Amino acid sequence: MRPVTSQGATGELALVSSLCGLISTSSFESMTSMSCAIHEGGELGYALAVSFGAVMDNPDLIVTCLIGDGEAETGPTAAAWHLTKYLDPVESGAVIPILHVNGFKISERTIFGCMDDKELICLFTGYGYQVAIVETLELIDIELASTLDWALGEIKKIQLAARSGKPILKPRWPMIILRSPKGWTGPKKVDGEFIEGSFRSHQIPVPNANKDEDHLRILQSWLQTYDPSRLLKDGMPAKSILDIIPEKDSKKLGQLKQTYDSYQPLNMPDWKNFAVEKFQHVSCMQETGKFLNEVVLNNPKSFRIFSPDELESNKLGDVLKNTGRNFQWDEYARANGGRVIEILSEHCCQALLSGYTLTGRTGLFPSYESFLGIIHTMMVQYSKFNKIAQDVKWRGDLSSINYLETSTWARQEHNGFSHQNPSFIGAVLNLKPEAARVYFPPDANCFLSTIHHCLKSRNYVNLMIGSKQPTAVFLSAEDAAEHCKKGASIWKFASNDGGHTPDVVIVGVGVEVTFEVVKAAELLRALLPDLRVRVVNVTDLMVLAAESHHPHALSHTHFQDLFTEDRPVCFNYHGYATELQGLLFERPRLDRISVKGYNEEGSTTTPFDMMLVNSVSRFDVAARAIKGATKHNEKVKEKLDEVLKEIEKRVLEVKQYISTQGKDPEDLYDMPKF
Amino acid sequence: MRPVTSQGATGELALVSSLCGLISTSSFESMTSMSCAIHEGGELGYALAVSFGAVMDNPDLIVTCLIGDGEAETGPTAAAWHLTKYLDPVESGAVIPILHVNGFKISERTIFGCMDDKELICLFTGYGYQVAIVETLELIDIELASTLDWALGEIKKIQLAARSGKPILKPRWPMIILRSPKGWTGPKKVDGEFIEGSFRSHQIPVPNANKDEDHLRILQSWLQTYDPSRLLKDGMPAKSILDIIPEKDSKKLGQLKQTYDSYQPLNMPDWKNFAVEKFQHVSCMQETGKFLNEVVLNNPKSFRIFSPDELESNKLGDVLKNTGRNFQWDEYARANGGRVIEILSEHCCQALLSGYTLTGRTGLFPSYESFLGIIHTMMVQYSKFNKIAQDVKWRGDLSSINYLETSTWARQEHNGFSHQNPSFIGAVLNLKPEAARVYFPPDANCFLSTIHHCLKSRNYVNLMIGSKQPTAVFLSAEDAAEHCKKGASIWKFASNDGGHTPDVVIVGVGVEVTFEVVKAAELLRALLPDLRVRVVNVTDLMVLAAESHHPHALSHTHFQDLFTEDRPVCFNYHGYATELQGLLFERPRLDRISVKGYNEEGSTTTPFDMMLVNSVSRFDVAARAIKGATKHNEKVKEKLDEVLKEIEKRVLEVKQYISTQGKDPEDLYDMPKF
Repeated sequence: MRPVTSQGATGELALVSSLCGLISTSSFESMTSMSCAIHEGGELGYALAVSFGAVMDNPDLIVTCLIGDGEAETGPTAAAWHLTKYLDPVESGAVIPILHVNGFKISERTIFGCMDDKELICLFTGYGYQVAIVETLELIDIELASTLDWALGEIKKIQLAARSGKPILKPRWPMIILRSPKGWTGPKKVDGEFIEGSFRSHQIPVPNANKDEDHLRILQSWLQTYDPSRLLKDGMPAKSILDIIPEKDSKKLGQLKQTYDSYQPLNMPDWKNFAVEKFQHVSCMQETGKFLNEVVLNNPKSFRIFSPDELESNKLGDVLKNTGRNFQWDEYARANGGRVIEILSEHCCQALLSGYTLTGRTGLFPSYESFLGIIHTMMVQYSKFNKIAQDVKWRGDLSSINYLETSTWARQEHNGFSHQNPSFIGAVLNLKPEAARVYFPPDANCFLSTIHHCLKSRNYVNLMIGSKQPTAVFLSAEDAAEHCKKGASIWKFASNDGGHTPDVVIVGVGVEVTFEVVKAAELLRALLPDLRVRVVNVTDLMVLAAESHHPHALSHTHFQDLFTEDRPVCFNYHGYATELQGLLFERPRLDRISVKGYNEEGSTTTPFDMMLVNSVSRFDVAARAIKGATKHNEKVKEKLDEVLKEIEKRVLEVKQYISTQGKDPEDLYDMPKF
Repeated sequence: MRPVTSQGATGELALVSSLCGLISTSSFESMTSMSCAIHEGGELGYALAVSFGAVMDNPDLIVTCLIGDGEAETGPTAAAWHLTKYLDPVESGAVIPILHVNGFKISERTIFGCMDDKELICLFTGYGYQVAIVETLELIDIELASTLDWALGEIKKIQLAARSGKPILKPRWPMIILRSPKGWTGPKKVDGEFIEGSFRSHQIPVPNANKDEDHLRILQSWLQTYDPSRLLKDGMPAKSILDIIPEKDSKKLGQLKQTYDSYQPLNMPDWKNFAVEKFQHVSCMQETGKFLNEVVLNNPKSFRIFSPDELESNKLGDVLKNTGRNFQWDEYARANGGRVIEILSEHCCQALLSGYTLTGRTGLFPSYESFLGIIHTMMVQYSKFNKIAQDVKWRGDLSSINYLETSTWARQEHNGFSHQNPSFIGAVLNLKPEAARVYFPPDANCFLSTIHHCLKSRNYVNLMIGSKQPTAVFLSAEDAAEHCKKGASIWKFASNDGGHTPDVVIVGVGVEVTFEVVKAAELLRALLPDLRVRVVNVTDLMVLAAESHHPHALSHTHFQDLFTEDRPVCFNYHGYATELQGLLFERPRLDRISVKGYNEEGSTTTPFDMMLVNSVSRFDVAARAIKGATKHNEKVKEKLDEVLKEIEKRVLEVKQYISTQGKDPEDLYDMPKF
């Protein structure tokens, strides 16, 4: 919604008031506009979908959602009308969408305002609704009241049928179209220009009331139409107004527990029961799927997964072992409940997740890495709402909002350049440090520990990034737990600094790029046994932030313990190098630190070629390490040219193999040996 | 579209083939699938809107756009169906959308696949179309051919009427729904599971043909259904196939000029004719609006503006002086042409801009700063397409794609926290340096020079950020031209280093934050006349990138000329500090450089309070400068505490004024005097 700073939204305000009245006298105890929770969605056009998220697993909740005809032009709203098709009337409540057609946006006419009744009824009937039009201005309160009663009756019919085991096939949920002039009841004309019924009522209709006599008179006579003497008495609202407020708190708008304090912690299984043996290749996602299956079983009414049809492709299919996809238009899924919603609209997924989380439950949004960027502004809006909400004393905690990225740029089996976009990481990094959490668990056990932590956490934006392809398991369950707790550690099994200051530190942040770092250490051990190499993995990105810039940021001492005081440090990073560089900026002695990451290079090529073209392969790491280390180790300096030549030779061999065979040499992924 | 790597898309492939055949025999010479231009839009669901952009001002072009029922679930596609309402049949061509309903996405059923004919016809009739359903598999080629002929006839009818001065009111453009089984004509079953008509035909239907005898046989008999002996002869396509290829190049798909080489440079007015006098406050946007009005006049058929209904609000309303908003459903705008489209869907705006630019014309997308992030992944997809296209020899240049951000976080008169999001800058920074261009013109003259440059440029992604409120003009037209050419300069009028090494360099990047820097210089001159301060403004952000990292990056020497070798440098930056830090990372001696920028703090507060809460006010800059300068100037060190106290006192005074008066002290914006 555009801001309600003035007359512009008089229509909306009048409507909200009449709704409030209706709600308090409604026979449906739990009906509420959920305005606190969903207003934040207005600007980006996703309030409608947020409402659907709010009523899921809240069978007695009915949310009215007012949609301006401006925001109705947005894609996210246009897609969200379909969401009744994902609402099982047994387990979930209902939404009454009210499309408010006043004909104008800030200054242009609206699409819906220029559609006649036939066009509108046709469109929304096609979306699956029963449509009622409310437009008789002289009787608008009565008409709206009776229409809402009709809507409630229709909802009750659908719910009763479903809840008594005889669900209506493709139930046609009610929706309301409210036609009223923009700026209705405001000034008719100012300076000879129409205000009521025109775009000019948007924002400030009488701009010069503080310096122009005529404007002041217009303002005065407008405000007098509200008859303040009837509304106010002795500086207080009159009894007739106060009487509208329901007696019971539970009937007051905004005092529903769902709107301010409804957090239900999940019943979490022990992730260590799902841990795998180390020194094998295992898919992080497959193991996570098994774990999530248990989360679903343990939390049949307070955990949901929203995905743009990528669960199977992301190898998380095990979550479907004990639950289904909740799509009511599919005859095989109809009226069967189900914890999973797969709609190919990231906007809908994000809005459903927001609505579900804001009403106290916990959700997960797994996605191809490249597609979460689609909803980055929605995530930022959510975080802004939550930042302000945290400042309000009477608000309780919320579950964190949880994102899982896989099918990343690092493994482009058949997709290619269009599917390479790790930019959602940067979007989370730009949030306030209190909320921002980004994790790169380096193996399956670390991923299990991380997702367990995230689903239990509160008030954060958690982003977890992992691989769906089998990758090396480096840490036992116990070591993984310890590593994730610290956020970053020296991997002694791959280091040969003997606990002393090394010549160089090589650091992996991300699954595949960490494997390359460990393989680089193996390579360096073979080519240059005199080089003292330390291998570090960072699983919690935020530990790298400059001291005091993030709650997880390593103290200066801890940072030095890992990265030494003055030795070259080569970061091999999953995301864009510049974002990690920005994060590290106020750490001391940056001239010794180099960062390589995804560099917008790639195609439908082999996994290893993706490492090569983005300069994050083991060979690149090894070459950077050697060049950096020459400063501190004379023996290395002597052999520099020779070793670099050997590395170059190996790169060429691999490139040739890939270009002739169309696949990576198989031994490339052998578990590193030290 | 999901990638066509295998059988999954057999249906689509067959269809495309039959379309190609049709097109070559069609009576409409210019009909084309524009597949090169629009395929890149598939993944994010915006191919449909890109098609509409392509036909605008191409009156003889008809684009068929195939929309999968998966991508049809996306918001961008759901909104784009309305775009016929923005198509004037006199000046523009037409789109034939073909919704291909095969019922499945990667693994879940689709919404459209579960809607019956009545539901589908109702929905698309509501959107404004005439709907034809093609579904008779036995006769699919004939049915599709005759349906396309029908569609072409309907288009011709609408165009003829409009072009002979009798436009049809609310013309109902044709669209086609094609129902065919997913994986049609592929293997029926593999390992006992249905393939044809099931989601399993997505991607690889016979995965083990290289190691399993049964699979190999299935693959073989499937491929034999194509009857290769009929299609191929002596290792070449048979004559019957080759005969399908049209003789004339102009009838070959992909050889239409629009698809590969159609760049039309704009006829640009001289921006200096619009320049303003310096030392006054002028709105960059208002002056830019006047300039754009002239661009519109000079280029009546090759320049368009796409805006989410924010032109007036962004103070660019002057572009409407000689042209209108092209919205055919508005009776007052109908059949009147118009260079401006204002739809409240950033996704539609971006896709229209992409389609328009990809077919050789030039567009501009002005937006509130906070809302361009909505389309950041679409912009990235566009850039990826363009990066690859640039590598292809036979492709010509394209106009740059141009974004203008105003209504920024720095002026939150009535919007507030939800409208503060400068993250689109970071999205552009992550592009390949060859394409990424970000400009912060510090005043109206610099803005004119910049937009003139951008609209003339080719193959870039240009992001220009400016203020719509009156702000100080610091540079004359000549100085502005020189400054913009350099990208960054020392502002001597505000500096007191006398051309020698200063004690401190203070740098503004962005309109409002630069004003604060200049005011900080004024303040420091008064409080600490002994302090040698250099003021620098950066208008072309990319000059700061580390040497060789960007074509605009300053050489090491030039960087030192501006920022000295070792003096403290305080950046006051419009965007998120971390992105500038990332950009600067490989510059030497970073420990002397500090960056402040938008820090996710704010509300509906005064402009100056926004500076204060994000620590970029003149007082913050002055305090940082003094603290940094103590190292190099003993006199400053002595007075440090005293001056800091004085600054603190002034901050308190201003804060108190704002909190009691609800506005900024008026003298705060006086032109700085030196």
